[in-house]
Amino acid sequence: MTKPYHVVGIGNAIVDVLAHADEAFLDTHGVQKGIMQLIDMERAVHLYGQIGPAQEISGGSAANTIAGIAHLGGRTAYVGKVKDDQLGRIFAHDLRAQGAEYDTIPAPKGAEGETGRCIVLVTPDGERSMNTYLGVTEHLTPADIDERLMAGAAWIYLEGYRFDGPESHEAFSKAIGAAKSTGGRVSLTLSDPFCVERHRAAFRKMIRDDVDLLFANRAEILSMYETEDFDEALSRAAAEIDIIACTDSENGAHILAEGQRWHAPAIPTQIVDATGAGDLFAGAFLWGLTAGHDLETCGRMGCVAASEIISHIGARAEADLGALFRQHGLI
Amino acid sequence: MTKPYHVVGIGNAIVDVLAHADEAFLDTHGVQKGIMQLIDMERAVHLYGQIGPAQEISGGSAANTIAGIAHLGGRTAYVGKVKDDQLGRIFAHDLRAQGAEYDTIPAPKGAEGETGRCIVLVTPDGERSMNTYLGVTEHLTPADIDERLMAGAAWIYLEGYRFDGPESHEAFSKAIGAAKSTGGRVSLTLSDPFCVERHRAAFRKMIRDDVDLLFANRAEILSMYETEDFDEALSRAAAEIDIIACTDSENGAHILAEGQRWHAPAIPTQIVDATGAGDLFAGAFLWGLTAGHDLETCGRMGCVAASEIISHIGARAEADLGALFRQHGLI
Repeated sequence: MTKPYHVVGIGNAIVDVLAHADEAFLDTHGVQKGIMQLIDMERAVHLYGQIGPAQEISGGSAANTIAGIAHLGGRTAYVGKVKDDQLGRIFAHDLRAQGAEYDTIPAPKGAEGETGRCIVLVTPDGERSMNTYLGVTEHLTPADIDERLMAGAAWIYLEGYRFDGPESHEAFSKAIGAAKSTGGRVSLTLSDPFCVERHRAAFRKMIRDDVDLLFANRAEILSMYETEDFDEALSRAAAEIDIIACTDSENGAHILAEGQRWHAPAIPTQIVDATGAGDLFAGAFLWGLTAGHDLETCGRMGCVAASEIISHIGARAEADLGALFRQHGLI
Repeated sequence: MTKPYHVVGIGNAIVDVLAHADEAFLDTHGVQKGIMQLIDMERAVHLYGQIGPAQEISGGSAANTIAGIAHLGGRTAYVGKVKDDQLGRIFAHDLRAQGAEYDTIPAPKGAEGETGRCIVLVTPDGERSMNTYLGVTEHLTPADIDERLMAGAAWIYLEGYRFDGPESHEAFSKAIGAAKSTGGRVSLTLSDPFCVERHRAAFRKMIRDDVDLLFANRAEILSMYETEDFDEALSRAAAEIDIIACTDSENGAHILAEGQRWHAPAIPTQIVDATGAGDLFAGAFLWGLTAGHDLETCGRMGCVAASEIISHIGARAEADLGALFRQHGLI
């Protein structure tokens, strides 16, 4: 039986506020380069007051992934909490306009907090440093998880960042249970090395018990397995998970499954803004997988999609990814 | 005595919602190509529901001009009405972050309407078709005009679009009176040929009585003087206004003053999004003028700035305009 959804994603619903900044700005304002830091509303307001002119583009890690799969023609849905405010409507519009289903009930106008946003500071080298005010997206509860939706997914895709926030583990458990009850498979992204640091035990347990496909980058998988030996981390992951897709920046991606290992080369491009590279790698990989491509090809699709995303501001595809796959002989 | 501001602008405070669309989409949804159409909230919600993923970038014609002057180091202030909502805060941030003063009191949370926005549909040829929901920005009244601000300006810059909306003429009159009382000069942009159509008599009167510098493009000045002869339109304008700066797309710009006429060539570039080309032409021209450059150089600066703006999405400068002026030997 064909399931109604190729991939259903769960994550933090975030609008990105993208601005350019130099290294001195990061130092002066205590922004750690290249990672995601959680900030409260007060810090968000302060930091926003310091940055230059910005542009607003819908983001959210898993939402970027789901948008990428929808862009490629995959059947997708997304679960994540916005508020019934202007930024929330922008987030919902951009996801639906890309062809993804999105029906999570927004927090009402009167609720505390606002739609989550991420002040993304892009340095001249194209690296992004993320400052996330979670707002209402922190409060995604098991009640927001529609079991029929999860049961209808060939794959669910879980965002590691969602380990932050109350009731997030319960929400994930409910989603995993429903998905597995109909033979659905579970993919997880580790999201960020410091996120792994905060929740290593919970990540470990989920990986051991439930995860069929793990997305990570070098820093994240090293943090996960508390080693500085990349090959060791990959081997240990491969011993407990069916499929590993691990990116390594300009060195491309490593895919491990069934005792084999493949390498997908990175596509050289001028890095304008690295925001979303990992998200779109995962989106293209999952699309390839659900479209029946072999794992090496999925990895190569991921690298092509990542190179498109880092060539412009924002974490949603601007070029036609399917056309790029054809150009690279992948479809 | 040096005045505190080089340029103070008055216009509609708008956040642009930029999306790509093809010609068929414009036809299907009754969007007229290449011009600005006013739409109500219902139409805005409907049209927004039909367009693809978008990005939000602060816009507003005069605000883009003022942001450009501030970007170049000019001392500027802006007057235009937003609401105390998320889009209003985005608009205010982006202008202040560029270095412009912006102190217009926002419409309160409870006010009818929202911060104005413009759904900008960019076709593959780079042309933009604008669908503007004015919202609260329509209601800028004489009370919002700070006479001390206007009196402190070497130039005020009036946006033709602001002829729409109740009390807009009274607000302009107050601003002009205050500016002229201290020897300030008045510049006006015609904004749009259909805007000229709606308010020709009022434009005529202001031009005859008050305007020292007129910005227009070919379609606007033809509409203004109800002729199809471009040279005739320019001559008639030159007979009643000190300085005319008239753009003509890929043919560059024509500057007329003191019985002379100069031509500034357009800078060839790949057109990604024409939004803001005229606004930044005006910004660069006014900056050049207040920095003491001759009119021909001001026109060439305008063309360089316009070429930068049309090379990317959005109507605010991304490259360093001063550096571009140096590259072109203008400063």
